[in-house]
Amino acid sequence: MLNCAVVGATGYTGAELVKILLRHPRVRLVALTTRQENAIPLKSLVPGISKESPLEVRKFSFPDIKRKADVVFLALPHTESMDVAAQFFRAGKIVIDLSADFRIKDTALYEKWYGVKHSQKKLLAEAVYGLPELNRETIRRSNLIANPGCYPTGTCLGLLPLLRDGLIDPDSIVIDAKSGVSGAGKKLNPATQFCEMDENFYAYKVNRHQHMPEMEEVLSYAAGQSVRITFVPHLLPLNRGILTTLYLKKNPGVRVAQLRESFERAYKKEPFVRVRPIGEFPALKDVQNTNFCDIGLTSEPDEDEIIVITAIDNLVKGASGQAVQNLNIRSGFKEEEGLLG
Amino acid sequence: MLNCAVVGATGYTGAELVKILLRHPRVRLVALTTRQENAIPLKSLVPGISKESPLEVRKFSFPDIKRKADVVFLALPHTESMDVAAQFFRAGKIVIDLSADFRIKDTALYEKWYGVKHSQKKLLAEAVYGLPELNRETIRRSNLIANPGCYPTGTCLGLLPLLRDGLIDPDSIVIDAKSGVSGAGKKLNPATQFCEMDENFYAYKVNRHQHMPEMEEVLSYAAGQSVRITFVPHLLPLNRGILTTLYLKKNPGVRVAQLRESFERAYKKEPFVRVRPIGEFPALKDVQNTNFCDIGLTSEPDEDEIIVITAIDNLVKGASGQAVQNLNIRSGFKEEEGLLG
Amino acid sequence: MLNCAVVGATGYTGAELVKILLRHPRVRLVALTTRQENAIPLKSLVPGISKESPLEVRKFSFPDIKRKADVVFLALPHTESMDVAAQFFRAGKIVIDLSADFRIKDTALYEKWYGVKHSQKKLLAEAVYGLPELNRETIRRSNLIANPGCYPTGTCLGLLPLLRDGLIDPDSIVIDAKSGVSGAGKKLNPATQFCEMDENFYAYKVNRHQHMPEMEEVLSYAAGQSVRITFVPHLLPLNRGILTTLYLKKNPGVRVAQLRESFERAYKKEPFVRVRPIGEFPALKDVQNTNFCDIGLTSEPDEDEIIVITAIDNLVKGASGQAVQNLNIRSGFKEEEGLLG
Amino acid sequence: MLNCAVVGATGYTGAELVKILLRHPRVRLVALTTRQENAIPLKSLVPGISKESPLEVRKFSFPDIKRKADVVFLALPHTESMDVAAQFFRAGKIVIDLSADFRIKDTALYEKWYGVKHSQKKLLAEAVYGLPELNRETIRRSNLIANPGCYPTGTCLGLLPLLRDGLIDPDSIVIDAKSGVSGAGKKLNPATQFCEMDENFYAYKVNRHQHMPEMEEVLSYAAGQSVRITFVPHLLPLNRGILTTLYLKKNPGVRVAQLRESFERAYKKEPFVRVRPIGEFPALKDVQNTNFCDIGLTSEPDEDEIIVITAIDNLVKGASGQAVQNLNIRSGFKEEEGLLG
Repeated sequence: MLNCAVVGATGYTGAELVKILLRHPRVRLVALTTRQENAIPLKSLVPGISKESPLEVRKFSFPDIKRKADVVFLALPHTESMDVAAQFFRAGKIVIDLSADFRIKDTALYEKWYGVKHSQKKLLAEAVYGLPELNRETIRRSNLIANPGCYPTGTCLGLLPLLRDGLIDPDSIVIDAKSGVSGAGKKLNPATQFCEMDENFYAYKVNRHQHMPEMEEVLSYAAGQSVRITFVPHLLPLNRGILTTLYLKKNPGVRVAQLRESFERAYKKEPFVRVRPIGEFPALKDVQNTNFCDIGLTSEPDEDEIIVITAIDNLVKGASGQAVQNLNIRSGFKEEEGLLG
Repeated sequence: MLNCAVVGATGYTGAELVKILLRHPRVRLVALTTRQENAIPLKSLVPGISKESPLEVRKFSFPDIKRKADVVFLALPHTESMDVAAQFFRAGKIVIDLSADFRIKDTALYEKWYGVKHSQKKLLAEAVYGLPELNRETIRRSNLIANPGCYPTGTCLGLLPLLRDGLIDPDSIVIDAKSGVSGAGKKLNPATQFCEMDENFYAYKVNRHQHMPEMEEVLSYAAGQSVRITFVPHLLPLNRGILTTLYLKKNPGVRVAQLRESFERAYKKEPFVRVRPIGEFPALKDVQNTNFCDIGLTSEPDEDEIIVITAIDNLVKGASGQAVQNLNIRSGFKEEEGLLG
Repeated sequence: MLNCAVVGATGYTGAELVKILLRHPRVRLVALTTRQENAIPLKSLVPGISKESPLEVRKFSFPDIKRKADVVFLALPHTESMDVAAQFFRAGKIVIDLSADFRIKDTALYEKWYGVKHSQKKLLAEAVYGLPELNRETIRRSNLIANPGCYPTGTCLGLLPLLRDGLIDPDSIVIDAKSGVSGAGKKLNPATQFCEMDENFYAYKVNRHQHMPEMEEVLSYAAGQSVRITFVPHLLPLNRGILTTLYLKKNPGVRVAQLRESFERAYKKEPFVRVRPIGEFPALKDVQNTNFCDIGLTSEPDEDEIIVITAIDNLVKGASGQAVQNLNIRSGFKEEEGLLG
Repeated sequence: MLNCAVVGATGYTGAELVKILLRHPRVRLVALTTRQENAIPLKSLVPGISKESPLEVRKFSFPDIKRKADVVFLALPHTESMDVAAQFFRAGKIVIDLSADFRIKDTALYEKWYGVKHSQKKLLAEAVYGLPELNRETIRRSNLIANPGCYPTGTCLGLLPLLRDGLIDPDSIVIDAKSGVSGAGKKLNPATQFCEMDENFYAYKVNRHQHMPEMEEVLSYAAGQSVRITFVPHLLPLNRGILTTLYLKKNPGVRVAQLRESFERAYKKEPFVRVRPIGEFPALKDVQNTNFCDIGLTSEPDEDEIIVITAIDNLVKGASGQAVQNLNIRSGFKEEEGLLG
C-alpha cells in the first residue's frame, strides 16, 4: 500500500481526487488537508463513503505529511503550489502537482500569464509534463509530475499524433473548446451564480486564456517547430466535461485514411484514449465521470480541412483522474488501477 | 402618462419591474436608481429594449425623484425600505413597496423575524397589503401599498376562498412550496453557485421562513380566527417560478363541488387567477413570464383531505407584475394594462 | 465468484445495475440481455468500463441464462416480469425482480393499479419485499426478492421506525415527493422531451400513483393497522434523485427526543441509512450516485406536527443499488460490498 | 389593422410567432391552424394571454384563410410548405414562409439536401430571401418571403459586411455554432429526451447540416464569388439561443480598425443588430426572448486571424421575430413594431 496525501482536498479537483483514491486498491490516504482551521469530516465532501469512515480533512501540516506520506498530491491554486512542491520534493517525496506551476518550461511565459515571479526555476528541470500519452517513460522515473491543465489535455490528445506524423499544418490550428462550470473552481463569482449561468452560454478569455502557452509549448515540442494556436474557450451550463472542436488543415498529399491510422497507431494501446470510426463523434455523456478521452474525426476526401472532436471530463482526465494515472505509472501499478468502472 | 420611478432597479425584481413598465402604455419611466456610484445603461439590464434607448440607472437622489415622479416603486432589501418609503409618502407620492417592511401589521412579529426595529410604526396604519384579490378596494385609495411576498402570494391565493367560506379547518394547513433560484436574489452566495445548485434540490428554512408571519396574518384575517401554518420551502434548480402544494382538511359535511365553487366564485372575475377543472394541475411552464396564478385542486369524495396546487412566477405575480397590477388599480387603469402577452 | 445475469440491461435501471455489478469484487456478469435483436457492446451503455471489455448485451435466451447464472436480476417493465421470474425461480435461481410484480401481496390491489391479471399468484407467497431495513432476515433465505419501488423506499425509510414505535398517528401521513426524470424511464414521451421539462416543475398522478398501494401495504404491516396515505409526486428538472417531505402528527405525549431516538435505534447499524441531527436536512447532492438514504427531521416542542425529509438516488437506493444490497444479504457477502466509494 | 393567419401554430416556431403577433399593435389574428382534428384553445399554447381570449387553433382550411387573411405565415415542416405557399401566393396573399422551401435558389441543391423534388420551381423566382439586413428593399415589394434559417441568420450577420467589403478571405470561413434544443423542433426524438440531453453537449451533422447550402448561397452572393464553408453545429442543454463562433482570415493589408468600421457602417442604422466594442462578446442571455443579433469581434493587430461571435434567439431573430420584422417591412410599418420590450 502506498501512503498518499492530498494537499487542498476541499476544492472540486481535490474532492474528486480523494474520491478516486478512496477506491484505489493500492492506496492508503494518510493526510487530507485544507487551509481552514477546523477539521472537516470527509463524509461531507465525498457523499458515497462509508458511514463509519473516520477520515477528516485537517489543517495543513508539513511535518505531519512529511512523516506519513510517500506521495503528495497538490491541488492548490496556481502560484501557491510551487513552494510547497519544492519542500516536499526536497524531502524526498513523489510530488504530483495539479496546478500550472511546473507545466511551462519557459518561466518568462509563465510569469507573463500567471502574473507572479517563478520562485522555483531550478526545480522546473526536474518536472515532467504529466501527459501519459506523451511522456509515459519520463513519468515513470520523475519525482515531480506537473499534471496537465484540462483544456490542454482535451486539445493535445486530439493533435499530438497528427503533428508528430507531420500530417497537418502547424500554423492552421483553431481550437473551439466548451467547458462545464466546475472548471471555474469553487470560489464565489457573480458570473457563475446559478441564475446567471442557467440557460446561458458564452465565450470568455477569447484567444487570451492562460492555458494557451501551455498548449503551445507541448504542441511545439511534438511538432518539432514553433506552433501558434487560435483558442476560444466557452462556458456550458452544466457541471462537468470539456468538448473540444479542432479545425485543422492537412498537409498536401495527405490521404484521409492516414489521419485515422495516425490516431490508431498512437492510441491503440492507450488505456484511456478511444478513437471512433471516421464520422462518429463523442458526446460529453460518453466520458463524464470517467478517465477516458474520446476522439472523433472527419475529413472530406477532396478537401484540405479536417475536423477533430475530443471529449473529456475536466475533473477526471482533465485533472484528478490523470493525476492518479500518473501515480499508477510512477508507482509501477497497472495503469487502469482505480480508474475504471 | 404616469411618471414612475424605480428605486433599486438592478436586482432581479427591480429589473423585471422595469421590463414590465417599459411595455406599459400609460407609464413614463422618469428615474431608475441604484446605490452604485456609476450610471448603468438600461440596455445591459433589459436586453430587449431599443438600441437607441438613452435610459440609464443612476445613483439614487431623493430630490430628483421627488421632483419628477408621481409613483415610486421601491425594490430595496427588507429593512432598508421603510425609511425611504416614509420620505416619499410624506412627499405626497404613491409608494409601492416590494420589500417586507409594511406587510406585517404586528411590529413585534416583524421585529422578531427581520431582526431590526421598525422605525415607521405609525405609517403601518396607512399601508395596505397589496394582494388585489383580497384588498382591491383599499388599494384603490391607498398611497402606501405593501406588495406581497412571493410565497405568500402563491399560498394565499390557494387558501383565501376556502377560509373565507369556512370550508376548511384553519388548523390543518400544510404548505409545501418549491421556488426557482431567482427568489434568493442576486447577492453572492456559495449555496447558489451554479455547480452547487445544478442537478440539486433541497428544503431550507424548514418551518422557519420569514414569510410565515406574513402568511399567518393574512390567512387569520381571512379566516376570522388565528391560523397557524406548517411551511416548508424548497429550492428548485431553475430560474423562476413557485409551485405550492397545499394539504388541507375539509370541514365536516363539506362536499367536493363546494370547493370548486368557492374558487370559481372568488376568481371568476379576477383577471389573473385561473382555476382548473377538478383533477387538473398547473405546471411552472404555464405561468412563467406571466402575471397569472393558476390553481388546481382535487379531493376524493369520501376523504376529508383536499389537495390544492398553485403556480406563479415569483418575479411577476410574486413581485413585479403584482406591483404593476397594484399600480393599475390605484391609478384607475385597466387592470391588465401592460401585463398580458 | 457469483454468476449473475441482468435481464433488461438497456433501460436506465438496468444499465445502472450493470455499472454497479461490474465494480463488485465477488460478481461475474455472465449474461446481459435485451429484447432487441442485435447485440449491443456494453461500452455504449456504461461509459467507464475498459476499452478492451468484450461484454455485450444480447437477445434474451432462457436456456443460456439457466445454464450460466446463479442469480438473475430482472429489470423488465411492470407486468412483463412475473412470468419470466417464475421460470427462473422454478429453475432454482435466485431471482431479484426490480419490477412491481411481486411487491404487493394483495393481488386484487395489484390488478386494480397495474391493469392486468396477476398470473403468478402462488409465487407471491415465496416473494419477500426487499427492503433490507425491514426484512433483512427473510431476504437472507428467499429465492424471490421483490425489490422495492423508488418512492416507497424514500417514503418508508422515513416512516417505519416511527410507526413501529407507535410515535405517530397512522392516519396523518402526508407525503410530498419530488423525483428526477430518470424515474420515468427511457421510453419516448412528449412530456419528458428536453424543451418541455427544462426549467419546468409540476405534480403528476396527484394522489393516484401506482406506488401508493405498495406503500400502504408496507406501512400497514409496520404499524400493525391499516394505513391510508396522501401522496403527491412531482417531477424535477434534473436527472436523478428523490426528495420526500413527510408531514406527520405525533401521538399525544410523545416528546421530540423520542422521535430522533426511534430513528437512531432503527438505523444506527444500518450501513446505508444516515440520520442527521435534529433540524438538519439532506439535499439530493448528498445522495446522488450513492446507495444512501439520508434523513432529517424537525419538530417544535410545543406542536404536534413533525416534518421528516428523506433523500435517495432513485436509480441506486431506489432501484439498482438496493438490488445489489439484497444480493449481498442473500449471498452472505458484506452488505456494503460494491456499494461504497 | 392587418389580418394575419398562422398555418402551423402548434410547433415551437408557430407558437412563438403567435405570441409575438398577439402583442403587435397593427395585427389582427384571423386564423391559427393545425393538422390536428380538434380545436385547441390558444391559452394552452401561449400562457400569457388574457383568460377571456376566445382564440383557438383549428384544423387548416384553405377557403377560410383565403377569405379572411391578408398575410399568411407558414410554419410548416420543410418540404410540406411549398405547395401551400403556392396556393396562397396565387390567391394574392402575402406569404411569409418559415420553412426552407423557398430559401435556396438552386433547386438541384435543395433537392439534394432536402431529399424531395421541388414542385414550385417557377415560384422561386418570386421569392426573396428574407434577411432584412441584406434584402430590405426587395422584401418591401415581394409577396413571397422566404424567412431565413436560424443558423444562417446568426452566421450571415457575422460575415456579410466583411465579405461585401472584401476584408476577409472567402475560403477561410470556419463556423462553430451552438444551439439550444428548441431548434430541433417539437417532434419526439430519443436524443432530445430530457435525461439524454440534460448535462450533455455534442456536435451533430458535422459539416453536413442542411443549412450549409443556404449559407453558401447567401455568402457567395455577398462575396461576389463562390464561398465554401466549414460548419459544425452543436446542441446545448438549454432551451433557446444560438451562439456562433466564426474563425476568419483577414485579407493582406487589412487593419483591425477596418473590420469594426465595416460592421459599424453596415449595422449602425439596423434596429436589430448590435455591434460590441472590440474585445467584448455577447452571451445568449443578452439576446434570449429578443429579436436582436449581438456581435463581438477580436483580432490581434499582428495576426491574420479574426474571431467574430454572434448571438441570437433561434426562435425570434432566427425564426418568428424575423418573420414579423419582414411583415413590418413589407407592410410599411415601423420595423420595430411589436418586437421590442
